[in-house]
Amino acid sequence: MRTYKLTLAYDGTNYVGWQRQANGASVQQLVEEAFAPLVDGVAPTVAGAGRTDAGVHALGQVASVNAEIDLSPQAVQRALNVRLPADIRVLHVEDATPGFHARFHAVRKQYRYRMITASVLSPFDRWYVWHAPGRRNVDVMREAAAVLVGKHDFASFQARGASVAATIRTVHDVNLASEGDEIRLTIEGDGFLRHMVRAIVGTLVEIGRGWRSPDDMDALLARGDRGAAGATGPPHGLFLVRVDYH
Amino acid sequence: MRTYKLTLAYDGTNYVGWQRQANGASVQQLVEEAFAPLVDGVAPTVAGAGRTDAGVHALGQVASVNAEIDLSPQAVQRALNVRLPADIRVLHVEDATPGFHARFHAVRKQYRYRMITASVLSPFDRWYVWHAPGRRNVDVMREAAAVLVGKHDFASFQARGASVAATIRTVHDVNLASEGDEIRLTIEGDGFLRHMVRAIVGTLVEIGRGWRSPDDMDALLARGDRGAAGATGPPHGLFLVRVDYH
Repeated sequence: MRTYKLTLAYDGTNYVGWQRQANGASVQQLVEEAFAPLVDGVAPTVAGAGRTDAGVHALGQVASVNAEIDLSPQAVQRALNVRLPADIRVLHVEDATPGFHARFHAVRKQYRYRMITASVLSPFDRWYVWHAPGRRNVDVMREAAAVLVGKHDFASFQARGASVAATIRTVHDVNLASEGDEIRLTIEGDGFLRHMVRAIVGTLVEIGRGWRSPDDMDALLARGDRGAAGATGPPHGLFLVRVDYH
Repeated sequence: MRTYKLTLAYDGTNYVGWQRQANGASVQQLVEEAFAPLVDGVAPTVAGAGRTDAGVHALGQVASVNAEIDLSPQAVQRALNVRLPADIRVLHVEDATPGFHARFHAVRKQYRYRMITASVLSPFDRWYVWHAPGRRNVDVMREAAAVLVGKHDFASFQARGASVAATIRTVHDVNLASEGDEIRLTIEGDGFLRHMVRAIVGTLVEIGRGWRSPDDMDALLARGDRGAAGATGPPHGLFLVRVDYH
């Protein structure tokens, strides 16, 4: 038995998300199916660090897999990439300590969210940004985003109907960059609730439009009510950038 | 009668090229169909500056159209973008002198071609670069590319079977940039033969691999024979960047 740590990039446009689902092709399913021929046909479980939603992309998703094979990491990478479609690529494979689990052992994740405020969106951006035309006050968005740093109950930013009871997370860093017509949020934390980054982005956009005050952010966190925060930004602006381990 | 000059960007992946063809949807056809409702249903001819091939992209294609309407350029832009799919965008519309023709009056065009030499290609680049793994000697490619600048007979770099008799063109500028795993050719000239940029790129890659000497470029131009030059690079690495007018 050998344990591998995979680093993957994927364009989430054509998938129902990372996780296997009955209603369409998932990235997890395709990676597991690509693995099957290496282990005599019985696809092993490939555990991903982050459960990216339908349409969400990854630049550096991490996954772990245990398999009864004795292939070098390079051979595993080549074999998977030959079988996977071009919108899913295995960037790196390495041997991991037995028992390594990409989700349980992750200590820090970085997500990025891209918005374009121009009236006309470049055709090349159409699957990779939220097209939200109109002016935003980036300074107040940045002020509000800074409030998120630290250990908080993020229940106000969790998807409705999500069943996770423990909603306390630590955000280590938030950066809101603006260049030309693009606004880019980069956020790092020990973990993220379902739709958390997208709900944060939706709320920041409402603040940037002047519909809410940046001072409301504290109260929003305190309320613990999804209805209190802003709309959920669309999935296709979101990228899982990186997952860190000890 | 009013003449408009349109500047367009498009992702060429899903089209048979700019020009109307029987075998599939072209960008020209879609722009003309988007125009039709503005002129009571009879779509005018929209003349493009460059006949980009299937899979080739545009950042700044220019097109001209004469129409019996009296709409502001901004109104034309909005109306077209509402009707066009997201992979074709009208970036700018302005009034042009009556008689202006985007192709006949173009004096200079810039094309760009992107290559990635890494062994694994990012999923986000899969429709927008030529994935050509392996080392290239960029210095000799640059040396060979410089030979192209000036007025030459480019018959060796014209698509086989192309019917254009006048194959003399002037290349004003060639730039070969290399950064990380990317090689990027930018070429400007008064006009380009069919497949000319792609044949130049294919030949430069063979030189960069050491299959040909950079000194062969002069002889290749002199031969005037398509069989003498290298293979044609795939279309999806190519972008029409800009078209200039007096």
